[in-house]
Amino acid sequence: MTTTTTALPFKVADLALADAGRHQLRLAENEMPGLMALREEFGATRPLAGARIAGSLHMTVQTAVLIETLVALGAQVRWASCNIFSTQDDAAAAVAVGPTGTVDAPAGIPVFAWKGESLEEYWWATSQIFDWSAEAEAASADWTGPNMILDDGGDATLLVHKGREFELAGSVPDAAPDASHEWRVILDTLRASLAASPERWTKVADGIRGVTEETTTGVHRLYELEKSGELLFPAINVNDSVTKSKFDNKYGIRHSLPDGLNRATDVLIGGKVAFVAGYGDVGKGAAEALRGQGARVIVSEIDPINALQAAMDGYQVARIESVLGEADIFVTGTGNQNVITVEHLLGMKHQAIVANVGHFDDEIDMAGLEALAGATKVEIKPQVHEWRMPNGRSVLVLSEGRLMNLGNATGHPSFVMSNSFTNQVLAQLELFGTDYPLGVHVLPKHLDEKVARLHLEALGVELTELTPAQSAYLGVPVDGPYKPDHYRY
Amino acid sequence: MTTTTTALPFKVADLALADAGRHQLRLAENEMPGLMALREEFGATRPLAGARIAGSLHMTVQTAVLIETLVALGAQVRWASCNIFSTQDDAAAAVAVGPTGTVDAPAGIPVFAWKGESLEEYWWATSQIFDWSAEAEAASADWTGPNMILDDGGDATLLVHKGREFELAGSVPDAAPDASHEWRVILDTLRASLAASPERWTKVADGIRGVTEETTTGVHRLYELEKSGELLFPAINVNDSVTKSKFDNKYGIRHSLPDGLNRATDVLIGGKVAFVAGYGDVGKGAAEALRGQGARVIVSEIDPINALQAAMDGYQVARIESVLGEADIFVTGTGNQNVITVEHLLGMKHQAIVANVGHFDDEIDMAGLEALAGATKVEIKPQVHEWRMPNGRSVLVLSEGRLMNLGNATGHPSFVMSNSFTNQVLAQLELFGTDYPLGVHVLPKHLDEKVARLHLEALGVELTELTPAQSAYLGVPVDGPYKPDHYRY
Amino acid sequence: MTTTTTALPFKVADLALADAGRHQLRLAENEMPGLMALREEFGATRPLAGARIAGSLHMTVQTAVLIETLVALGAQVRWASCNIFSTQDDAAAAVAVGPTGTVDAPAGIPVFAWKGESLEEYWWATSQIFDWSAEAEAASADWTGPNMILDDGGDATLLVHKGREFELAGSVPDAAPDASHEWRVILDTLRASLAASPERWTKVADGIRGVTEETTTGVHRLYELEKSGELLFPAINVNDSVTKSKFDNKYGIRHSLPDGLNRATDVLIGGKVAFVAGYGDVGKGAAEALRGQGARVIVSEIDPINALQAAMDGYQVARIESVLGEADIFVTGTGNQNVITVEHLLGMKHQAIVANVGHFDDEIDMAGLEALAGATKVEIKPQVHEWRMPNGRSVLVLSEGRLMNLGNATGHPSFVMSNSFTNQVLAQLELFGTDYPLGVHVLPKHLDEKVARLHLEALGVELTELTPAQSAYLGVPVDGPYKPDHYRY
Amino acid sequence: MTTTTTALPFKVADLALADAGRHQLRLAENEMPGLMALREEFGATRPLAGARIAGSLHMTVQTAVLIETLVALGAQVRWASCNIFSTQDDAAAAVAVGPTGTVDAPAGIPVFAWKGESLEEYWWATSQIFDWSAEAEAASADWTGPNMILDDGGDATLLVHKGREFELAGSVPDAAPDASHEWRVILDTLRASLAASPERWTKVADGIRGVTEETTTGVHRLYELEKSGELLFPAINVNDSVTKSKFDNKYGIRHSLPDGLNRATDVLIGGKVAFVAGYGDVGKGAAEALRGQGARVIVSEIDPINALQAAMDGYQVARIESVLGEADIFVTGTGNQNVITVEHLLGMKHQAIVANVGHFDDEIDMAGLEALAGATKVEIKPQVHEWRMPNGRSVLVLSEGRLMNLGNATGHPSFVMSNSFTNQVLAQLELFGTDYPLGVHVLPKHLDEKVARLHLEALGVELTELTPAQSAYLGVPVDGPYKPDHYRY
Repeated sequence: MTTTTTALPFKVADLALADAGRHQLRLAENEMPGLMALREEFGATRPLAGARIAGSLHMTVQTAVLIETLVALGAQVRWASCNIFSTQDDAAAAVAVGPTGTVDAPAGIPVFAWKGESLEEYWWATSQIFDWSAEAEAASADWTGPNMILDDGGDATLLVHKGREFELAGSVPDAAPDASHEWRVILDTLRASLAASPERWTKVADGIRGVTEETTTGVHRLYELEKSGELLFPAINVNDSVTKSKFDNKYGIRHSLPDGLNRATDVLIGGKVAFVAGYGDVGKGAAEALRGQGARVIVSEIDPINALQAAMDGYQVARIESVLGEADIFVTGTGNQNVITVEHLLGMKHQAIVANVGHFDDEIDMAGLEALAGATKVEIKPQVHEWRMPNGRSVLVLSEGRLMNLGNATGHPSFVMSNSFTNQVLAQLELFGTDYPLGVHVLPKHLDEKVARLHLEALGVELTELTPAQSAYLGVPVDGPYKPDHYRY
Repeated sequence: MTTTTTALPFKVADLALADAGRHQLRLAENEMPGLMALREEFGATRPLAGARIAGSLHMTVQTAVLIETLVALGAQVRWASCNIFSTQDDAAAAVAVGPTGTVDAPAGIPVFAWKGESLEEYWWATSQIFDWSAEAEAASADWTGPNMILDDGGDATLLVHKGREFELAGSVPDAAPDASHEWRVILDTLRASLAASPERWTKVADGIRGVTEETTTGVHRLYELEKSGELLFPAINVNDSVTKSKFDNKYGIRHSLPDGLNRATDVLIGGKVAFVAGYGDVGKGAAEALRGQGARVIVSEIDPINALQAAMDGYQVARIESVLGEADIFVTGTGNQNVITVEHLLGMKHQAIVANVGHFDDEIDMAGLEALAGATKVEIKPQVHEWRMPNGRSVLVLSEGRLMNLGNATGHPSFVMSNSFTNQVLAQLELFGTDYPLGVHVLPKHLDEKVARLHLEALGVELTELTPAQSAYLGVPVDGPYKPDHYRY
Repeated sequence: MTTTTTALPFKVADLALADAGRHQLRLAENEMPGLMALREEFGATRPLAGARIAGSLHMTVQTAVLIETLVALGAQVRWASCNIFSTQDDAAAAVAVGPTGTVDAPAGIPVFAWKGESLEEYWWATSQIFDWSAEAEAASADWTGPNMILDDGGDATLLVHKGREFELAGSVPDAAPDASHEWRVILDTLRASLAASPERWTKVADGIRGVTEETTTGVHRLYELEKSGELLFPAINVNDSVTKSKFDNKYGIRHSLPDGLNRATDVLIGGKVAFVAGYGDVGKGAAEALRGQGARVIVSEIDPINALQAAMDGYQVARIESVLGEADIFVTGTGNQNVITVEHLLGMKHQAIVANVGHFDDEIDMAGLEALAGATKVEIKPQVHEWRMPNGRSVLVLSEGRLMNLGNATGHPSFVMSNSFTNQVLAQLELFGTDYPLGVHVLPKHLDEKVARLHLEALGVELTELTPAQSAYLGVPVDGPYKPDHYRY
Repeated sequence: MTTTTTALPFKVADLALADAGRHQLRLAENEMPGLMALREEFGATRPLAGARIAGSLHMTVQTAVLIETLVALGAQVRWASCNIFSTQDDAAAAVAVGPTGTVDAPAGIPVFAWKGESLEEYWWATSQIFDWSAEAEAASADWTGPNMILDDGGDATLLVHKGREFELAGSVPDAAPDASHEWRVILDTLRASLAASPERWTKVADGIRGVTEETTTGVHRLYELEKSGELLFPAINVNDSVTKSKFDNKYGIRHSLPDGLNRATDVLIGGKVAFVAGYGDVGKGAAEALRGQGARVIVSEIDPINALQAAMDGYQVARIESVLGEADIFVTGTGNQNVITVEHLLGMKHQAIVANVGHFDDEIDMAGLEALAGATKVEIKPQVHEWRMPNGRSVLVLSEGRLMNLGNATGHPSFVMSNSFTNQVLAQLELFGTDYPLGVHVLPKHLDEKVARLHLEALGVELTELTPAQSAYLGVPVDGPYKPDHYRY
């Protein structure tokens, strides 16, 4: 499992950076009780011994705690980021150098991630997490690849599936004329691989016991693969655990929406009128946070059930067109597109703030805005732009319409990620320890409950225990699972 | 569909009572927009024409609005209550006499329900809703029974299933020595029926297209029948619609818990420490209501996910033993038994208030309390008892440990019931209009969404509509359903 | 201090009633920790020994606890109600009969109050609290009247001032032609007194050390007397203690507004739009309660500072005309008149609920409504009327426009009154124990703080204590007072 | 009023900086509606024409909007900061250069402020605002000093009072051996002045019509001067306007406490236990903000009235010793010292966060912590330090115990400052336009109400207006003032 720092990508082998990152890790560990509890529970038995995990997930401080947890449970790990911008270099360095933090005794993890990769570098890094020849050599093993994938967004999984597909076909196709730059980079990467090692991905695919996937997008891709019969190994959908989805969405946004608004604008939220598009988990968190700061919140919804929930929670529910000139802050949390159109932007009050915490940057029609004749864009500071509209008014657009909880704030706090990542580790334990059939699975409810359980003590929560008589009366095991699968929480 | 008032049970044919009830109906109609919207939508096409509904559900003002809605949609109806105490006599009379409210032109519904029935009367009344000979004669029809059941708790369904079972067996069995009084009454009722008309229930069962069931208990019975292969006709589980369960539980309890506490005790809730056992929908509504009145709320939970939700909502989560001497008000909302034991009662502060909004009267160990040596019970007023404990302190027990939202308050408000009953009517429309396979079904999500939709206008909610482009982007129809079945709201 | 039950007004000497009342007292004592703490603190030293208190204040269960506290502190007391309707007969009887509750050993208080007095009876009763001849005889004393007044609304104080004024003038004037019936009764009462005992009130006035006054109205009268130089003895304004005004207004209304709405209408508050006129303490309590039940609250204000507070608390602030057709529930809490006019009533939604928790029944223009051609009034139940308007819609008016927290709910809970009444007792102790100059005084801040202090333990509050160093640093005594007089809390 | 940029302190005459600052001003103007409304109302009549204002107040973006408002109302202004660190250089430059922002047409304000002044530079800058010789020359006037002071903390006022005192005495005394460095600098400054111009401050003092003071500290000094008979000119206490104190404290802290916590630590607030010392306006804002983010809040208080308010608002009230090991976040908002002692710090959970939003850095015993043997301080990032305690645990101390809303967040938002500064401008108008007697005055209530009024439209608030009849009924003018001075809001 050892490696030398010289084998690491240039930016990662920086001992000072590693030292700074190690500070952050220590703080984060305290806010990630789920992961630390797993180290406690499984540190001795090391149930992941023999697991060789290829990880592709934002290389942040929290991920560093995840990686070191996997290692503490016995796994070997190689890691890349799943995004060219999201790496925190000090966290990457800390993991790469390892806890001892000295040049002479590198005991770190091979990490292939730095902030600001080019797409070529990104896909090179992703392919590196599948090359375990050094580890194989050190272990005198007959394998040369991983046996597990931990994925976020599905890029690692894609590379294996596409690599094998093209190997079976004998060639990598040309890109279509309108193909994206990234797709061309992927094809080039696989074309070079095919030339160098024509059975590489087929062998890699054969070795994989399964993948655990973090996100909606990645899960969507997996279900598509399953539907089309192309899925090559079992997958666990971590995204739909209650302890993942509620935390990432409701509680995460409740935290980071006002944080992002404050860092971006310093505008007093109290007394303002805030419009929140969407009352799913994201919208619920957003509305609660804004109300908690003394704003008057107006919600919009397409789903009558969610709309009724918003009304029962005391919010006005209105179409955006009805309140355009009334709101000071507009927040989108729908996952839909063109929720705020250029026409809407033109109808807003002067210096209305427009922020997206939903999904892509087309929730607000940024393309339309950029094409609007007479509109000019003034950078107030990075990720905060005043768009001067032809009508003489301005709107303040945060993070260029992309997720402002990432762009203007710092994303999910460690405690939120502890929930997600404890799900990830348990999913890795499941897939590595049990023969799952081919298909996409959700984590069994008792494990979802376990994730919650591991976060209670840190919050001072005392859990009540069923007596045997009560357990029998309810027909519910003392240790759970406590609820049917369709329970709504 | 006409009948004469003289054909009605004695207490129901009271014109003055009917007049008073009609007042209440008029007020309730305004708070039941879902039902009124269905009258508007289907009043002309009368899709329930031909439906002969045997209804067994608490004969309250809200049920009266339900009944008149079924009739407005074309149905014929006969009605009994599903509880010997729950009938509001004025509502029963109003429905029985009909909207014109005059002796000369009775146009009402055959209603067999009055407050304070004996069990014998109750089962007689229930059997009356299956006797459609008068209607058949008036229509020169070949049928003599209903073709639909609308049930609450499953008693009507039970009568049909057991009646047919005993007819097939050729005899009604003797009651076991330890059988309840009610079971003996049921057997006697069916024994008399078998003697008088040996194929009555077999024919009734053959004529039924399906049943729509309101409650957890009734739904549980239906799933048992389905599992054992005894289910005779399709059933729709109305209980698990979002618009039923959230309203009955979360929003209903949020309303009626403080209402019941106030009517029972007039104690200031503000500043008090309130303990809420259970953080499911009932507990969530209870905790929100108490916090909204300025109480400090402590929650207990057995399920770590719900416990974590409570913590994230800012509540202290503790075992009851840890806060016994600290809390002023104890509320149970678990569905479990012995959540508050006699030992707990003995550890409480002087004049602590103990209230159950969960399920049965064994959530608080009332049997144990009654058996406690040295404890005496003083009636402060009906449904409010001071139990003087042998330790010299008192506890105030509401509604003798039964549901205090019924005993000390007035149950669910009309708007809550409008949601439940709109589900009921839509379920009747489904079962009557579509050939459902044998089995227990939940209402399709688009109908759950429709129930919500019909309650929005009354609350001034404006719903946003997907554009065709957005609909295509999301892969979600403009008119819904908008969410996958596992969506948690 | 003893008396015989036969000396009491007819309705009060009822032992069964007294027994029922004693139950209520016992429960109330637990919710009135301030009074009970005073009994504890001063029960041995009896600092009110020698005080002869003429009390005029609603003869309720809470007042009964007040009276018995005064007695426990050594005072002799005679009592009348300050309102012809507000007496709770069982409470009156319990106090009259005394704690032993037996005929043979009456040890009670002379109480002259019953529910439903005529005005003649009312003023007779008020004059009885000034006739201490029986007590004087028993004590072989030279006085024949009280030396303290405890007043609510100022009627007892009025009688003394007017009685003395007319005695000095030598005659009681005739009533003006447009004088109210009540004023005529007062004049008649004093005319008879003048005839029978021409120096009675002059002597009474001479004997009075001071009066403590409970209400805004009574305090207003006192300031008028002070301004005109007619005030005969020092007065303490209990009304403006923080622990009186905040509890009576903000916390009292937060409790009793939803309570009254529920008892009156059983309408679900959640999801409704509620309009609250006025954002003083009453409006703040009302708005918080309605939001706590899931309503969307819109506030109106005339004072820009209060309006800004409402906005900063997240409420929409609008004129009633702007939201007439939007609100379901209208609440007035202003102390002003014609806040809701007939024109407003005509613009409301069908079955809008209209409720006053402010001051008089002219906050809603009830006179105008009663004069409105084509409007008819239907009693749904006592204190709940549906007014059918000529436009075909209805409004539901609670308590005929009078205070619905009294008419539809049960007024202030015991804990609220414990705060008010602890102020009263401390004010009596001040005036009886200290020579106050002529004038109207507020209770010194340290006593206001003491009232609060005596209510903390019951709520489980731990108070932090200043160290001597901190006390010196702040220039604030360890035991208070902690704040300057203009502090706003 | 013109000046050349070359006359300005070196850092201020930076056109690029001025341009950046002008951007910020434009955004801030939109959030400072009170000031902009005053420009609208008084821009034509220019009631401050003739006013020569010496301003000493943090030279921030918001102050820039204040300065340009004073100028728009006709005043001439010279400005210094009241703190050596608080100047925002771009704001200073923007004001200095003026709205046109070009070298050729400087039309700006003489500003003597930059970030990071030495104490010598600071007092030099302060003395510059009293030197109006250039303006006098341009106007061919006989005056050479200001006629108004706008002060924050009282340094400008101090300089005038001490300068005149020493001039009358004929010499500047030597500093006492234990005098602070700052006091020595002041004495040196005045000694040099006395030498150069022995009647300078006497003349300045003679010319001053009055001072308006922003802060508690400055107001305290003024009351001391008044008490000792040393006050030289009338003063208006702006600090105690409702619209100043509530905004600065309650609403300002509600905004900036979570903002500072987030920027400093990125720790999820939801689910955490937060301890708030003090439940005055600062504590109320802090508690509301933390609850609004899903924390469980425990409050401590020394004042039983405030403690009771906290309990009635649903918070647990406890001494810090009782909950040391339970809380994750500690916030002080008392104005007291040693609220958190070293012993408390030693009893906290690992990585507990400690933050002060009260007053000075002795609320947390930082001196004691620094002296603690075995404690080491690790800088996580500026203003965030991990103190590793000898017990093996850490605490995270924000802003070295100083106000973390300034150190970790960005202080009060513009809207908050708009309230404060509108009070300032109205106070300047009062003092300049009216002959106030010598003494310290608060702003009349109708002006406090006016400040509120000017901020309503920006929040979409509709104010209700009294009818003449209502005005007469209440005895309250239609345009206010609406409340007595002792009203508590």
